[in-house]
Amino acid sequence: MATIIDGRSLAKTINTQTSKRVAKLNQQGIHPGIAVVIAGDDSASLIYTRNKHKKAMKLGINSVLKKYPFNVSQDELLAEIDKLNKDDSIDAILVQQPMPPQIDSRIITNAISPEKDVDGLNPLNLGKLFANQNTNYPIACTPRGIMRMLEEYNVKLKGQNVVIIGRSILVGKPLLALLNNADATVTMAGRSTTNLSRLTQTADILIVAAGVPHLISAKDIKAGATVIDVGINRLSTGKLTGDVDFDSAKEKAGLITPVPGGVGPMTIATLMEQTVDLAQWRHHG
Amino acid sequence: MATIIDGRSLAKTINTQTSKRVAKLNQQGIHPGIAVVIAGDDSASLIYTRNKHKKAMKLGINSVLKKYPFNVSQDELLAEIDKLNKDDSIDAILVQQPMPPQIDSRIITNAISPEKDVDGLNPLNLGKLFANQNTNYPIACTPRGIMRMLEEYNVKLKGQNVVIIGRSILVGKPLLALLNNADATVTMAGRSTTNLSRLTQTADILIVAAGVPHLISAKDIKAGATVIDVGINRLSTGKLTGDVDFDSAKEKAGLITPVPGGVGPMTIATLMEQTVDLAQWRHHG
Repeated sequence: MATIIDGRSLAKTINTQTSKRVAKLNQQGIHPGIAVVIAGDDSASLIYTRNKHKKAMKLGINSVLKKYPFNVSQDELLAEIDKLNKDDSIDAILVQQPMPPQIDSRIITNAISPEKDVDGLNPLNLGKLFANQNTNYPIACTPRGIMRMLEEYNVKLKGQNVVIIGRSILVGKPLLALLNNADATVTMAGRSTTNLSRLTQTADILIVAAGVPHLISAKDIKAGATVIDVGINRLSTGKLTGDVDFDSAKEKAGLITPVPGGVGPMTIATLMEQTVDLAQWRHHG
Repeated sequence: MATIIDGRSLAKTINTQTSKRVAKLNQQGIHPGIAVVIAGDDSASLIYTRNKHKKAMKLGINSVLKKYPFNVSQDELLAEIDKLNKDDSIDAILVQQPMPPQIDSRIITNAISPEKDVDGLNPLNLGKLFANQNTNYPIACTPRGIMRMLEEYNVKLKGQNVVIIGRSILVGKPLLALLNNADATVTMAGRSTTNLSRLTQTADILIVAAGVPHLISAKDIKAGATVIDVGINRLSTGKLTGDVDFDSAKEKAGLITPVPGGVGPMTIATLMEQTVDLAQWRHHG
């Protein structure tokens, strides 16, 4: 029976630290601020955005929401990003995905100033991460949150076999860089991977970010492995479930994250933490 | 008995194409130019640099050598890079490694304009590669040359298991990105990897860039695998040898590169090709 990683509790600890840091910065006249740009009425996106907004306000971080209609043009969004880049009260800019089809997300995220790129999506920040540069730069929040969980639960990384399922720029790729930088032996798998189960059974640490409900179950897991489930899938019953069949997997894994209550809360806590980092770096270098 | 990949012959083909492209650009008044910055008297570096210079001149590419003494300061080198960044006759800037110990190579390579970064070392270019952006940007020449070899010999990539040994920013990491982008299932191994032989035996494609003579021999290779040897090690006898024990490995592999005559010539040919690319992109977008 695995130890269950308590993402909610760890997120709470981080949030407490973050709000203390905000209070301290306020005394120096620095007021961290985040702007979230959203287009359209996707209900899941609206909920996520509102949650981020509430959490920011609760921690003392200024939060502004830039809401655009579904038919917004690329130029309008680029003009907004440009304004936010120049706005001294804004330290962090986040563009809520998905964007409407007429928008090239890549062009929008590339336009965010690397210093305010709280999602770590600008290629300059991604490149610094892969180059393992020892300077300050933002890192995608979900991967950074996962690394924090692994650290908190004393999971050894050096020389360990890690398998990451999912190659997204928001999760899989930054994780690949972080774990390579930590001297793990990392394999990145995707849809075209053959013999996935044989591969995952070699993993000391298995990270699943495939967006496929219950892709992984006990039979795919090495006994005692650490299993991190990044999936958040809503079943037809309305219930949230991960990419891992938690009930069977928890009997075989050594450490495992639940869904909900695992990676999710850590992502929002890390977003807030990194917003404060960006404010601090921008004002103190 | 493996098919031997003929890097020299393929490099020759590329060089012929490159010199034709140069002639065509010349007719449009465009004269591709490369600058190589070198510091100190390391004899291997001087030989490499001279070879690049000769090859460039032979293909009609202008080549300038900026030679500094071993005790050059970081500021002097940064001033040189700044000058070359602004020099309209220079399309490609290469800083010959290793630099003297008082120089922080990372600061120097970060200072190269991303548009002239022929080694693909600027984090912006590395980030674009990991983000798989479909725009024009330079890629480290050895990895680009290896991808060309694999293409030329019709090596299937999608869904194949690839193991890369070596995590350098000049070879291992860009290869990881390129092969991920090609939908292979890539594992990156390093010094801390445990059970390396068991891992390499799973590889359909094995790329060895460890800098350890004969690290890999037949017993570490899956029968029929493609083996790419990036190592160039000089033995005490003066003879060059790779990271792969070629004599035993060629009996088990399906395809294999020799050392010398495999990856090496491809790297220089790709450097020349990419210099012309940079000239073309800078003048024609």
